[in-house]
Amino acid sequence: MSSLCLSMEGGAAASTPTALPYYVAFSQLLGLTLVAMTGAWLGLYRGGIAWESDLQFNAHPLCMVIGLVFLQGDALLVYRVFRNEAKRTTKVLHGLLHVFALVIALVGLVAVFDYHRKKGYADLYSLHSWCGILVFVLYFVQWLVGFSFFLFPGAPFSLRSRYRPQHIFFGATIFLLSVGTALLGLKEALLFNLGDKYSAFEPEGVLANVLGLLLACFGGAVLYILTRADWKRPSQAEEQALSMDFKTLTEGDSPGSQ
Amino acid sequence: MSSLCLSMEGGAAASTPTALPYYVAFSQLLGLTLVAMTGAWLGLYRGGIAWESDLQFNAHPLCMVIGLVFLQGDALLVYRVFRNEAKRTTKVLHGLLHVFALVIALVGLVAVFDYHRKKGYADLYSLHSWCGILVFVLYFVQWLVGFSFFLFPGAPFSLRSRYRPQHIFFGATIFLLSVGTALLGLKEALLFNLGDKYSAFEPEGVLANVLGLLLACFGGAVLYILTRADWKRPSQAEEQALSMDFKTLTEGDSPGSQ
Repeated sequence: MSSLCLSMEGGAAASTPTALPYYVAFSQLLGLTLVAMTGAWLGLYRGGIAWESDLQFNAHPLCMVIGLVFLQGDALLVYRVFRNEAKRTTKVLHGLLHVFALVIALVGLVAVFDYHRKKGYADLYSLHSWCGILVFVLYFVQWLVGFSFFLFPGAPFSLRSRYRPQHIFFGATIFLLSVGTALLGLKEALLFNLGDKYSAFEPEGVLANVLGLLLACFGGAVLYILTRADWKRPSQAEEQALSMDFKTLTEGDSPGSQ
Repeated sequence: MSSLCLSMEGGAAASTPTALPYYVAFSQLLGLTLVAMTGAWLGLYRGGIAWESDLQFNAHPLCMVIGLVFLQGDALLVYRVFRNEAKRTTKVLHGLLHVFALVIALVGLVAVFDYHRKKGYADLYSLHSWCGILVFVLYFVQWLVGFSFFLFPGAPFSLRSRYRPQHIFFGATIFLLSVGTALLGLKEALLFNLGDKYSAFEPEGVLANVLGLLLACFGGAVLYILTRADWKRPSQAEEQALSMDFKTLTEGDSPGSQ
């Protein structure tokens, strides 16, 4: 039933563009390397991770890279990757991935505030922390607003289609700001821990710089897949004109849902 | 003649969207505040700027914020701001702003390498420097390729229209990477110079954090103006279909030029 519905939405949605799977695979390779390399950095040079010791701090970068970079990025890609699935399913997956990302990021936040409290360090003085709090609050608000408009039933079609481009823009912007904040945090960790050894090209510094470049590349890859015009699902106007009645009949979904 | 030509391109280009000027004005206010605040930071807390002394380093952040952030951002906005001008004029302005940005960034690069050489500091060990060199090389390559495809006559129409979306994507990405690199540099300067005083909420630290947030906001504002679908010039396909003959007749411009 879903394939009938989608074939009504026009040719673009019914088939997957040839190059898209390769780009998605590349982005996932980058993302997984990113997570593995963050783990390797913390394990090899920062003593590993534990909750009840000084190593609690190390939970912070790992959670943030998994949650606010890798999972958040993947949540944005859901509409490109599952372009031939029913929109409702894709939407729920998109929302769920963002929930996982939020929860993991929250654990990462608790880790660093708890560590600071135990050590008696000041909170929220650095540019990294300011950007981080901003990202987290914006991400939470974006999730809430997105949920109320697109998943919670009842938002009128006109409101949804007016909010949709804003949701997409702010989603991409919050993701990019997350990547930027991760870069600031990495830089902070390096300057705190390595000091003068950083300029002597210590292995830890080189590894962390490569990790930083990978973070930027992952951000770029997700942005490329998101913004390529011919990889988008067909526009709402097309969808509405072509398949509103079919969608309502076959899926029982509200017309024009994201 | 230009207005005749543009009115042939479809209604979207002939009039300016109501909200666009306000958003552009806001972005310019942000950009100018950014430059002024960078100057204030260097003047108030870092001793000002001079070429033949230790203050040579301070030319680096100022040049980079003016060139690779403010001017580069404005160069991207040219197609939105001058949407009712002849495309050739807009294109030349776009190219020229990027040349200014490149030259100012080159001065900023020379300043920091020269300063490192005089002080005997190591070059290119930090994540900021790696990202910075990457940005500069990509920016230069993007300019060269953009020039050969769009300003230098002779590139066939098919090649132009295939390269155009890539040029736009990489332009926006290089701009965002420039903003990210500036944030990393700011963070580096703060941690080198303030040390423990950073966590005591010293005025310099707070000022620089605000500067960092403004940098991110300027990046976001430019990205918003660039990506808003209804603020774009009409697409090339439309343009070609509707006005190719009129353009060729009235402007003598090659059809489908960017």
